[in-house]
Amino acid sequence: MVRSPSPSNPFALERLIMKNVIVLGATGSIGVNTLDVVSKFPEKFSVLGLTAARNGAKLEEQIDRFSPKVVSLMDEEVASSLRKRFRSKKVEILSGIEGMTAVAAHPEGEIVVSGVVGAAGLIPTLAAIRLGRTVALANKETLVTAGELVCAEAARSGAKILPVDSEHSAIFQALEGQRTEAVRRIVLTASGGPLFKMPPEKKRFITPQEAVRHPNWKMGEKISIDSATLMNKGLEIIEAHWLFGLPPEKIDVTIHRQSVIHSMVEFVDRSVIAQLGIPDMRCPISYALSYPERLELPVPSLNLDEVGTLTFEKPDPKEFPALTLAYEALKAGRTMPAVLNAANEEAVYAFLRKEIGFLDIVSVVQRTLDAHLPMTPSSLEDFQAADRWARERAEELIKQRYSPPA
Amino acid sequence: MVRSPSPSNPFALERLIMKNVIVLGATGSIGVNTLDVVSKFPEKFSVLGLTAARNGAKLEEQIDRFSPKVVSLMDEEVASSLRKRFRSKKVEILSGIEGMTAVAAHPEGEIVVSGVVGAAGLIPTLAAIRLGRTVALANKETLVTAGELVCAEAARSGAKILPVDSEHSAIFQALEGQRTEAVRRIVLTASGGPLFKMPPEKKRFITPQEAVRHPNWKMGEKISIDSATLMNKGLEIIEAHWLFGLPPEKIDVTIHRQSVIHSMVEFVDRSVIAQLGIPDMRCPISYALSYPERLELPVPSLNLDEVGTLTFEKPDPKEFPALTLAYEALKAGRTMPAVLNAANEEAVYAFLRKEIGFLDIVSVVQRTLDAHLPMTPSSLEDFQAADRWARERAEELIKQRYSPPA
Repeated sequence: MVRSPSPSNPFALERLIMKNVIVLGATGSIGVNTLDVVSKFPEKFSVLGLTAARNGAKLEEQIDRFSPKVVSLMDEEVASSLRKRFRSKKVEILSGIEGMTAVAAHPEGEIVVSGVVGAAGLIPTLAAIRLGRTVALANKETLVTAGELVCAEAARSGAKILPVDSEHSAIFQALEGQRTEAVRRIVLTASGGPLFKMPPEKKRFITPQEAVRHPNWKMGEKISIDSATLMNKGLEIIEAHWLFGLPPEKIDVTIHRQSVIHSMVEFVDRSVIAQLGIPDMRCPISYALSYPERLELPVPSLNLDEVGTLTFEKPDPKEFPALTLAYEALKAGRTMPAVLNAANEEAVYAFLRKEIGFLDIVSVVQRTLDAHLPMTPSSLEDFQAADRWARERAEELIKQRYSPPA
Repeated sequence: MVRSPSPSNPFALERLIMKNVIVLGATGSIGVNTLDVVSKFPEKFSVLGLTAARNGAKLEEQIDRFSPKVVSLMDEEVASSLRKRFRSKKVEILSGIEGMTAVAAHPEGEIVVSGVVGAAGLIPTLAAIRLGRTVALANKETLVTAGELVCAEAARSGAKILPVDSEHSAIFQALEGQRTEAVRRIVLTASGGPLFKMPPEKKRFITPQEAVRHPNWKMGEKISIDSATLMNKGLEIIEAHWLFGLPPEKIDVTIHRQSVIHSMVEFVDRSVIAQLGIPDMRCPISYALSYPERLELPVPSLNLDEVGTLTFEKPDPKEFPALTLAYEALKAGRTMPAVLNAANEEAVYAFLRKEIGFLDIVSVVQRTLDAHLPMTPSSLEDFQAADRWARERAEELIKQRYSPPA
């Protein structure tokens, strides 16, 4: 009774094709992990393009190792010095958002891994989607900011959006071979972050160094802070809404401290399919890269007998007001999720710069949302205008709180 | 990015067809649960045939309620009295193993739910498989006793075997849409039963009444005792081998006291897909009945926040020698699994009759296996001969232990 692949999944064919991979945000956590997976399967993947913000040294190494045809840096100065270094090598070096967008839209690109942090990832990711590329999406902001537009463009161009976030990859894997009409709800798991159950009077004085210490995952600073406020889960709720076409009331969250179950789907017959694994971003990245195949990754097995215990509890809305804000923004729709995301981004960086306290992050987001009159966006520019408005408003709120040292 | 059903799964068509259901073992735990599911979806299922061992009263009720065309009882006397009761009604009442086999092979049958307990289920289940019927299999013994033959017949006739055991249904669901070549191992969960971690000196004197108290599932007596010895999990390992085409070294067991995760599959990329749910047999039964659809069952959702904690630990081979015996029988192959099962069946019933002690069950099985010279079976008769031999041998061993009260 061995299950054979359905005729609609030509696995055998899939295996013969070497894929041209473009990595946006190559020097960040997602980018480095992506290139690690790619390096282990040279017969399957070829690196076509890389982009970075300003880490020229790391990008230089990656150019030497993977010989991409084109790279881009956000910072023109770094790009310029890199051009001198690679004068004799056949690598095109672009810069700015136009450069990153050109890399994303390279005509030979097949998979675009969008690992840029923040709303900066929206334009290049959307460019790849408009061209019908397969996009391995780690950049939450693309869907959070402009989900409606992005999904409409993907439907038009036929672009596949494959999630890279461990939670959404879990849902995607749990839905494989199942009908979305049969979904009763999904449950996103949240670790609860490094400050779980810490009383507010202590949280108030927490430093960025303390707040970035995620208990299970090694991630970038921005996403680590979002894990501590649970805004990360809030953004994931919005992302899940767009990725899987589910209304907010079908998206639940449970605090699962061990991060072993990455998320789950409950079907109408109350059967629950969950995806589990060790906390290693290479697993969801490799699934998005090789889908529908699975690659034999050299990572350790999950040994539940050693883990011993898994726990689950309902998140306390008083402890995590960010979660409520995200549900409200999703329900309100229109430009509200873009404002939520932009205000949060500004507030988190202000906290990392020690301009505001930890509890101020969500307060800045809340007050920015309160001040926003949501509009019905009809173009990318409308979403971007809301994003800009929210950043300006958040900046004002941050300045009000911030008294520079005398 | 909502996933649409693949063209090879004509869900829409599936929904229009009313299925003729035959239930073997209708008055037992699986049978009663099956009829409960069927009764909730009268537009989807029609009861064509029912069989029972000797519970005439319950079968009578079921005939009144579901109006099957044909029924059968193992006990000819009960069948005869039922014939008098239903003289005027259009129901054919058969008896014996021939009667049960005739019901299983009814020309209008579409799904045959095989819920008979023990090796008695083999012949009628095999008859349905030979006719290419879809078989919802709860009778473990069909595959444990004659897995090789049964799978060969299913391959020949095109019969689908859909597992009803919660563990195998979990694996089946976790494999949905996945390639079996990508499976690294499966992990069957075991509750550990009502006597978990009880010292042998106490286990020795345990009564049948104490041993049948399963912590999570409400089941028949035979399977409850098998849960206490873990022989149930041993039989499931052998069944999983045949259902999913996996070698013994790819089938693991973990003790999971809460029975919330019903089993899981680890793939080559170390991603684990698990199926979870409340302990209600109607869930796996309905999945087998409606596959690939899912029915909106009126059962409660699994609430992990309320469950709180899930635990996992490696089974101790000293505590559960039955598990080692089952692995050995599977590795030895040929007639060994049939002998394991038959000897166990005799030993469990002897324990339930208080003829032997609890610890004697596995000891009888072990000694029967030790005495067996495995042969390469070429027909059903060879498997049945091994089964008979094992029962006789086990009976002798039981008699040696049993001194009837003076």
